[in-house]
Amino acid sequence: MFIPRRIIEERLREFLVEDLGEGDVTASAIIAHDLKVKAEIVAKQEGIVAGIEESIILAELVGLEVEAKVVDGDKVEKQQTLMVIFGNAQTILSVERTLLNLLSRMSGIATKTHTLSQQLLKAKVKARVAATRKSAPGLLYFDKKAVAIGGGDPHRLHLDDMVLIKDNHLAILGDTEEAVKKAKTNTSFTKKIEIEVTDIQNALKAARAGADIVMLDNFAPKEAMEAGEQLRKAGFNHVILEVSGGVTSENILEYASAQVDIISIGELTHSIRALDISLEVSRS
Amino acid sequence: MFIPRRIIEERLREFLVEDLGEGDVTASAIIAHDLKVKAEIVAKQEGIVAGIEESIILAELVGLEVEAKVVDGDKVEKQQTLMVIFGNAQTILSVERTLLNLLSRMSGIATKTHTLSQQLLKAKVKARVAATRKSAPGLLYFDKKAVAIGGGDPHRLHLDDMVLIKDNHLAILGDTEEAVKKAKTNTSFTKKIEIEVTDIQNALKAARAGADIVMLDNFAPKEAMEAGEQLRKAGFNHVILEVSGGVTSENILEYASAQVDIISIGELTHSIRALDISLEVSRS
Amino acid sequence: MFIPRRIIEERLREFLVEDLGEGDVTASAIIAHDLKVKAEIVAKQEGIVAGIEESIILAELVGLEVEAKVVDGDKVEKQQTLMVIFGNAQTILSVERTLLNLLSRMSGIATKTHTLSQQLLKAKVKARVAATRKSAPGLLYFDKKAVAIGGGDPHRLHLDDMVLIKDNHLAILGDTEEAVKKAKTNTSFTKKIEIEVTDIQNALKAARAGADIVMLDNFAPKEAMEAGEQLRKAGFNHVILEVSGGVTSENILEYASAQVDIISIGELTHSIRALDISLEVSRS
Amino acid sequence: MFIPRRIIEERLREFLVEDLGEGDVTASAIIAHDLKVKAEIVAKQEGIVAGIEESIILAELVGLEVEAKVVDGDKVEKQQTLMVIFGNAQTILSVERTLLNLLSRMSGIATKTHTLSQQLLKAKVKARVAATRKSAPGLLYFDKKAVAIGGGDPHRLHLDDMVLIKDNHLAILGDTEEAVKKAKTNTSFTKKIEIEVTDIQNALKAARAGADIVMLDNFAPKEAMEAGEQLRKAGFNHVILEVSGGVTSENILEYASAQVDIISIGELTHSIRALDISLEVSRS
Amino acid sequence: MFIPRRIIEERLREFLVEDLGEGDVTASAIIAHDLKVKAEIVAKQEGIVAGIEESIILAELVGLEVEAKVVDGDKVEKQQTLMVIFGNAQTILSVERTLLNLLSRMSGIATKTHTLSQQLLKAKVKARVAATRKSAPGLLYFDKKAVAIGGGDPHRLHLDDMVLIKDNHLAILGDTEEAVKKAKTNTSFTKKIEIEVTDIQNALKAARAGADIVMLDNFAPKEAMEAGEQLRKAGFNHVILEVSGGVTSENILEYASAQVDIISIGELTHSIRALDISLEVSRS
Amino acid sequence: MFIPRRIIEERLREFLVEDLGEGDVTASAIIAHDLKVKAEIVAKQEGIVAGIEESIILAELVGLEVEAKVVDGDKVEKQQTLMVIFGNAQTILSVERTLLNLLSRMSGIATKTHTLSQQLLKAKVKARVAATRKSAPGLLYFDKKAVAIGGGDPHRLHLDDMVLIKDNHLAILGDTEEAVKKAKTNTSFTKKIEIEVTDIQNALKAARAGADIVMLDNFAPKEAMEAGEQLRKAGFNHVILEVSGGVTSENILEYASAQVDIISIGELTHSIRALDISLEVSRS
Repeated sequence: MFIPRRIIEERLREFLVEDLGEGDVTASAIIAHDLKVKAEIVAKQEGIVAGIEESIILAELVGLEVEAKVVDGDKVEKQQTLMVIFGNAQTILSVERTLLNLLSRMSGIATKTHTLSQQLLKAKVKARVAATRKSAPGLLYFDKKAVAIGGGDPHRLHLDDMVLIKDNHLAILGDTEEAVKKAKTNTSFTKKIEIEVTDIQNALKAARAGADIVMLDNFAPKEAMEAGEQLRKAGFNHVILEVSGGVTSENILEYASAQVDIISIGELTHSIRALDISLEVSRS
Repeated sequence: MFIPRRIIEERLREFLVEDLGEGDVTASAIIAHDLKVKAEIVAKQEGIVAGIEESIILAELVGLEVEAKVVDGDKVEKQQTLMVIFGNAQTILSVERTLLNLLSRMSGIATKTHTLSQQLLKAKVKARVAATRKSAPGLLYFDKKAVAIGGGDPHRLHLDDMVLIKDNHLAILGDTEEAVKKAKTNTSFTKKIEIEVTDIQNALKAARAGADIVMLDNFAPKEAMEAGEQLRKAGFNHVILEVSGGVTSENILEYASAQVDIISIGELTHSIRALDISLEVSRS
Repeated sequence: MFIPRRIIEERLREFLVEDLGEGDVTASAIIAHDLKVKAEIVAKQEGIVAGIEESIILAELVGLEVEAKVVDGDKVEKQQTLMVIFGNAQTILSVERTLLNLLSRMSGIATKTHTLSQQLLKAKVKARVAATRKSAPGLLYFDKKAVAIGGGDPHRLHLDDMVLIKDNHLAILGDTEEAVKKAKTNTSFTKKIEIEVTDIQNALKAARAGADIVMLDNFAPKEAMEAGEQLRKAGFNHVILEVSGGVTSENILEYASAQVDIISIGELTHSIRALDISLEVSRS
Repeated sequence: MFIPRRIIEERLREFLVEDLGEGDVTASAIIAHDLKVKAEIVAKQEGIVAGIEESIILAELVGLEVEAKVVDGDKVEKQQTLMVIFGNAQTILSVERTLLNLLSRMSGIATKTHTLSQQLLKAKVKARVAATRKSAPGLLYFDKKAVAIGGGDPHRLHLDDMVLIKDNHLAILGDTEEAVKKAKTNTSFTKKIEIEVTDIQNALKAARAGADIVMLDNFAPKEAMEAGEQLRKAGFNHVILEVSGGVTSENILEYASAQVDIISIGELTHSIRALDISLEVSRS
Repeated sequence: MFIPRRIIEERLREFLVEDLGEGDVTASAIIAHDLKVKAEIVAKQEGIVAGIEESIILAELVGLEVEAKVVDGDKVEKQQTLMVIFGNAQTILSVERTLLNLLSRMSGIATKTHTLSQQLLKAKVKARVAATRKSAPGLLYFDKKAVAIGGGDPHRLHLDDMVLIKDNHLAILGDTEEAVKKAKTNTSFTKKIEIEVTDIQNALKAARAGADIVMLDNFAPKEAMEAGEQLRKAGFNHVILEVSGGVTSENILEYASAQVDIISIGELTHSIRALDISLEVSRS
Repeated sequence: MFIPRRIIEERLREFLVEDLGEGDVTASAIIAHDLKVKAEIVAKQEGIVAGIEESIILAELVGLEVEAKVVDGDKVEKQQTLMVIFGNAQTILSVERTLLNLLSRMSGIATKTHTLSQQLLKAKVKARVAATRKSAPGLLYFDKKAVAIGGGDPHRLHLDDMVLIKDNHLAILGDTEEAVKKAKTNTSFTKKIEIEVTDIQNALKAARAGADIVMLDNFAPKEAMEAGEQLRKAGFNHVILEVSGGVTSENILEYASAQVDIISIGELTHSIRALDISLEVSRS
C-alpha cells in the first residue's frame, strides 16, 4: 500500500476542507495572523500509534514544521509526546481537529489489532488477524493501513481486489462448485478466488473446484479444526483457511488453536475506540 | 441540515466509487448480468436506525427500487426488516457493503445518543446531549446527522459555525475577557461566541464580556452547578452552559442534575459501535 | 474566515484553469519560453484594495516572485503600485487576467463598503454595514471577505450559518411566534435565530419568542427607530436590530440615525463596480 | 456555445453546493419535510432576461417542476412572472438564492448589453458591441452567454480562443510586425490573430503582416475612422476593426460612426448591476 | 469488472467535458435548437465491437434515445449499423466525436485481441492472450475492458492488483528467492505474487519460494517450454506460467505451443489501430 | 498551448492516481522505504521524443530529482538516455509506468507526425500536416501537443475552437451557402469558419459565402489541385485549403503537390504506435 506522498496529500487536503467550511472564525477573530507557536501532540493513553505519517504530511502541507518523536507502529505511553509542530498559530489551530481525528482513529484501530495479534503471537499459532470491508465509508485506505501497522492483514480493500464469493452470491447461484468454477473461468489469472462455506462438505467441494482461499463462516473452533484436517488430508495444503463470524477477543485463542491461517474480525474497523491524543499549544 | 437529495447523491456516489475500485470482480464473474433479485436489509440487533434516507438515495442512485419499512429515528428490533430492495443482482451485490457501512455506523451513533438522551429525559432535566467535532474525517455531516436523529444536538459541524475559544486559544491569549471581547469585535453578528473556562471566576468573566455560551471544562458536577448558580445570580440567565470533558454514560446523570443546558460527549462520534445490520438476497 | 493558504490555492487554481482553456496560444506563439520579466500591478483609480492576499497566493502558486507594496484594506491612490511580480513571461501573461479579475472585483466591493462604513463612522452611530447573500455564484467567500476588508459585516455566507426566517418562510408558516419557537426547538444551540418582520407588532412577538436578531424589512427610518424603542422598552436590549430593503447610499444616514445595529445592503455584492487595476510588464 | 444540459447541470450543482454548506438550517427547522408549495419568479424591474435556461436546469436538477413564462432574451416588465416553480418547500427555499443570484446577474448583463446594442442598431451602423475577458472568475461562460443573449459578441472566452497580442506582449517584443509574423508561424491555422495598436502606422503594419483583426486601443473616434479609411485604401477590407478602451455608454455612438466593426466594453462584465428579480412562495 | 452504470456515467461525462470546452460553436450557430434527428453509428470496417455499452450510457446521459443493434463482443461487417440514435440534433452533433473516439479505440483493441485469441484457439493450446499495463493514461479501465471483450485476460489494472516483481525490483534486491519471500511475508494473503525471471534456474527458485505466477521474460519459445517442463517435473503444477517480451502476431503460435498459460502482449493497448466507425445523421 | 506547470501537474497527478489504485503493493512489500536509487529513461527505438516536459513535471511532482538529457522534439537514437532520475526507490517504481505510458505515446505521435512532415518539407511544398479530433478521450491536450512537437498543426482541440461545418451538419442544413452565412451571423468575430465540401462547386460557394477555410473531403489529388486553382482564379487567395479523408503516408506527396495548405490525417492520433522507451534502475 505504498502511495507517493503527493497523492496522499490530496486526500488529507479534502478532509481539511470539510472541517474548515468557509474558514476558522475563532482563530481569525482572536489570534494574531503572524504569530508563531509551538505545539505538541501528546498521547493521553497508552497504545500503538498509526497515522503519524499522515499527520506529518497534513501539517507540512499547510506549511508547518514537524518534528516526529515516534514512527507508525511504535508503542507509546500516556503523556508521551508524539510530535512537535511549529509554525503559524492560526494554521495550527485550524488544522488541529482534522489531524487529531485521523491520528486517534488510526491509532485506535492499530492498538486493537495489535492486542489481538499479540495474543496469537503468544499462543504461537500461525493464524493472523485480518480486517474485513466493514469500515467507515471514505476511510478504507486509512483504516486498512492502520490494521497493517497494528500487525494485521488488511484483507480486501475494494471489490476489485480478489473474488470473494459470499452467502448472498450463493443464495443466487446455489452451488459452491459451480460458483468457484465460474469464477475461475471468468476472472483474470491475476486474482485469487475465495469462497465462504458453512460446512465441511462445501469446504472440500470449494477446494476441489480450485478455490485459493476457503472462508469458514461461523464455524465453531472445533469444526474449523476439523475442516482444516480434512482439507489437508485431501491434499489441499496450499488452500488458505480463513475463519470469520463470531470471533471476539474472548474466543480468538480457541479459533487460533484450530490451525487456521486467517481470523478476520469486522469490529477492527467497524467499531472503533479512538486513542486519546491531544494537541497542546505553548507560545514558543 | 436539509440538503437537496441531488447533492447528497454526489457524496454517496464518492463512497461507492472508493469501494468499487475498478469494479466488482466477483459479481462480474459469477452473476448473470440481467438477473433481478430481491434483498432485505435486516437489523441483527435492537437499536435506533439512522441512515435510512441515505440508504434509499444510494440504492435508487444505482437504479434499484427501494421499499423502506422504517424511517430514521425508529426503534427497531432484532431481525426486523428495515428495507426491501429490488433490482439488478450485480448492482445490489456491488453496493451492499457501502450501504451497510454507512447505515450501521449512523445507526450505531444514533443508538448511543438515544440511550443517553433517554437517561436525561427520564431524569426530567433540561440538559441535552451534544456531540463534539471529534468525528471521523470526511464523515462529519453523516455523524452529526446521526446524533440529531438519536435526539442529540449536533454542535458545531465546522470551524465556521461559531466562535469557540478553547484551551489552546487561551494558552496564546492568556485572558478570558480579552478573548471574548476580541471575538465580539472581529466576528460577524450572525455568530455565537462560546468560550471554555476551567473555573467559576472565568465563567463569570466570560459572561460579563459577552459570551453567549460558557463551556465548563472538566468541572465536577457540583462545581458545574455552583457555576450555574453564580451566573444566574449575576443576571446571566440567557448564557448557555455546556459541560464537557470527563462525562461518561456512568456519570451523565450527575452532570444533568447540575442544571446545565448542554452535555457534550466526544465518544458519541469518535468511538463507535456499529449497529449490526445485514443484507440478505433472495431470488425473487 | 481564516483558511490555510494551501486550501485557498486550490480555489484560485480552478479560476485559472477556467481562463486557460487548453492554454495561452498568444504567449505560447510569440514569447520566448525562458524569458523572465518584471511586471507591476497598478491602481488606475483611488480606492480600498482587497484581494492582495489572493493575488500573492495565485502568483506564487504558478512560480512567480511577488513583492507586495500594500496590504488588504489599504487605501491606494491612482497610479500607485500595488505589487511587483517577477518571473517567467509566459506565466505572467497567462495569469494576468485571472489575477486582475479577482483583485479588481474584491477591491471594488471593499471600496464601496468602505465608503458606506465611513459615512456611518462619521455620523457616530453604532450601526454597521452588512452584506447579504445576494452575491455572484461561486464567489461567496471572496465577496464576503472583501466586505469584511472594507469594514462591513459579511453576514451569512451559507445557508448553514444561522437560522434566518424570511418572508417566504412566513408565507408558509403564517405566524412569527410559531416560526421562532419551532426554530429554537429544532436548531442546534450553536446557531443564532433571526427573523424578518414587516411591522412593530411582529418585532415584539419575535423578541418575545426568543429571536436573537430581528430584521426590519422595508421599514422607513422612523418606523425602525420606533421599533427599536419599543423593543428596548420591553426589555429586549440584547436583541440585535437589522434593517434591510430600500437602503441606498443616499438614505443610509437616515437609517443609521434610527439606532439600529446592522444595515444590510444587497448591492454591496450583487451590483459591482470593479476597481480599475492593471498589470504592466517591463523587461527587467 | 451549445453545451448539453447534463454538463451545465454539474456547474450549477457546484454553485448550489457552495451556498448550502452543510445544509439549510432554516428550512430544516421550521418547514415540514413533505410540504409542497408553488413559487413564482417575478421581475421587480424592466429588462432583458438571461439565465432562464440555467434556472430551469437548476430547479429541475433538484426535483422541482418548472413552467417557464419567458425565454432568454425576452424583454420583461416590472412585476412580470418569469417562471412558476412547484415542488418540495424545503427544496425551493434552499435553492432560491443560488437561482436568483445567477438569474439576476445574467439578466443584468443582458440588459446592459441590449441597451448599448439598441443604440447602435438605431444609429444604423455596422458596429457590434462586444465583451472582454474582464469578467468574474469562475463565471466566464455565464457572463459571456448573457452578453450574447443581450445581442453582443462574447469575444474570447479563454486564452485558447485566438491569438490576441496586447500592450504587455508588445512591451516585450517591441515590434508589431514581428509579433504578428511570429504568431502566424507558430499558431494553428484554425486560430485568428488579433493585435492591439496605438497608432495608425502600426495598424497598417499589423494588417500588412497578416493580422485578421486590429484593435485600436484608446483611439479617439476620429482617429479610429481615419485608421479604417487608411486600411481600406491600402486594400485591407477583410481586416476586422475593433475599438477598445475609453468607450462608455455616453460616447459609444461617436465610436459607432467611425465605421468600425467591433466596440468592446469591459464594464459589460466587470461592473454589473443585477436585475432585481425575486421568488415569491404561495402555498398551493 | 462490473461497475454500476451511474459510476461509469461520471467518467464518460468527463471525457465529454474535455471535448466540449465552452461549447459546440458550430451546432450552436447553424442548427435549430429544437430540431430532432436520427443518426446511425456505422462500422466502416469489419471487426469486433467494444464500447457499445459505454456508447449507450454516454448517449442516454445527454438525453438521447438509443437502439443498439449489436452487443459488445459481436463481430460486425463493413457498413453494418451498430446503433441508431434519436434526439436533439445539437446534442447528437456535440457528442459525436467523444462517442466515436471511445468506441473505435475500444473496438480496435477488441479486434486485435480477438484475432490473436482466435489463433490460439485454433491451435488448440491452453495459452491465453493477456494485456499489460502499457496503456494510455486515464484509459486503463476502458482499454482492459476491451481486451476482455476481445477474449483476452486484462492482467493487472493497477499497482494494487497483485505483487509483480520485475527487472527493476530485482536490480535493487538482487535475489529472486529473497524477493519472493519478502513479498509473501509483507503482502496480504488476498494477493497473488508474480515474478519475472530471465532463466530457468530462477524460474525454479521463484516457484520454490512460493511464487504463484512466474513470468518468463524474453524467453525463446523453446526455452519457455523447457522451463515449463522443469517446473512441472519439480512438482509446481499449480504455478502459472506467463511469457512476456518479444511476442508478436507472427511468432505467437510458437509461444503458444510452449504450453505456457499466459502470453502477454504490450501492443494490445500501447499501439492501437482504431476501428473505423462513423456517425451518419439523417433527418428523421 | 502554454499552460503553467502547476496546472499540468494536476492532470498528471490524476493519471498517477488511476494507476496507483490503493497503492503499489510490490514496492511496498519488497523495497526498503528509505532507499534511494538512480534510474535512466532510455529509448529502445529511434524517433522524435515528446512528453519530456510532462515526464519532468510528473517526476518532480512526486519528489524525484530529474536531469533531462534531451528536450521535446529532439531526435533520439536507440539506447539513448533521455533523462536520469534520482530519488526514493518506491516512488520511482510506482510512477514508472504512468510516466512511460505518456512519454511513449506522445513520442509515438511526434515521430509519426515528424516523418510525414519531413516528406512534405523535402518535397518543398507549402502544405502542412495536421491532426484531427480523432484522439483518445481524455488525452486531447497531450496528443495535440505531441503533434505540434512533431511539426504538425494541432487543428481544433475542442468544439469551441472554431466553426467546422461537416457532412452531418450539411445533412441537416442542405445548403453550403446558407450554412456558412448562418455561421457568420451567429458566431463571434473571433472564430474562423471552416466548411467541408465534396465538390468544386461547393468549394466556390463556400468561399463566396465567406468561409475562412474550405475542407476538400475525399478529393483526389487532381481534384484538390483543380479546386485550388479555381478558387484562386475567383480571387479567394486568402481562403485556406485543407484536404482530409483518404490521405495516407503512401499518397501524401500526391496531395502535397496539389498546392493545398493543410493535409489532415486522423491516424496521427487515433492509431498510435508507442515509441519503445523504458526505465532502468541502477542502485546509485
